[in-house]
Amino acid sequence: MNHEQHMREAIQLSQDGLRSGRGGPFGCVVVRGGQVVGRGSNQVTSTFDPTAHAEVVAIRDACKALGTFQLDDCVLYASCEPCPMCLSAIYWARIPEVYFGNTRQDAASIGFDDDLIYREIPLPVDKRRVAMKSLLHAEALPVFKEWAEKTDKTRY
Amino acid sequence: MNHEQHMREAIQLSQDGLRSGRGGPFGCVVVRGGQVVGRGSNQVTSTFDPTAHAEVVAIRDACKALGTFQLDDCVLYASCEPCPMCLSAIYWARIPEVYFGNTRQDAASIGFDDDLIYREIPLPVDKRRVAMKSLLHAEALPVFKEWAEKTDKTRY
Repeated sequence: MNHEQHMREAIQLSQDGLRSGRGGPFGCVVVRGGQVVGRGSNQVTSTFDPTAHAEVVAIRDACKALGTFQLDDCVLYASCEPCPMCLSAIYWARIPEVYFGNTRQDAASIGFDDDLIYREIPLPVDKRRVAMKSLLHAEALPVFKEWAEKTDKTRY
Repeated sequence: MNHEQHMREAIQLSQDGLRSGRGGPFGCVVVRGGQVVGRGSNQVTSTFDPTAHAEVVAIRDACKALGTFQLDDCVLYASCEPCPMCLSAIYWARIPEVYFGNTRQDAASIGFDDDLIYREIPLPVDKRRVAMKSLLHAEALPVFKEWAEKTDKTRY
């Protein structure tokens, strides 16, 4: 596996995305067996999608190409340390290995406040900046019971 | 704002999604000024997209409908407490208020291990289950400097 080659492609995507005006300076590739199977650059502002970070775009691209929702035999190369949203997406996609270029401190220094979200996530629900309240728990729970009892479900 | 009415729609979406086989038992609506502007149910397994959680689908739907990448005047109703990916997406979308039905403990009890991701995110990079390594920092950093110096960029 040529790690440097794949990271250079992720960095190139970050530069292309910035110069073309698609979004922030972030790029990512997903690799399986030495082949790039997914590519992405940040597209938040150009596609009106706050979830269109480079890693999310590349994970979606790889899953579409491979016809799967799990990338447990893939490696992800990101031009910057993933934010908590992208890191969580990496866990959900079961990607076991990640390489990154810039750090979250570098991101903070150019105005991307991943650190705020890193600090908020471990807090109790009632201590976060986002106001979060429980509602209608008794009406929501039966749907979970129905899922637990469903025999023909696809787990993920 | 009729909070119960909107939560009931989110719960209904969770049940519809489960019964139609689109994905896991999760639903979500995004509301602005009393009107539902985005809807979503989990579509991970049916669309081969590990990021297609109900909240992400609803946020993308609302942003598309409103032509924006920020929902700072919206309220989100989720049939279950958001996982770290969705919670981070809520921060990136600048949504200030969230209501949820089921809890992360309920989700764990039917096989959705949000708790693992909640525990992993605050860990140092080298202590996580996902192997994470820094690579080519010196080559990645100039793109951040280019962003910092770009005068015609759209911030987000």
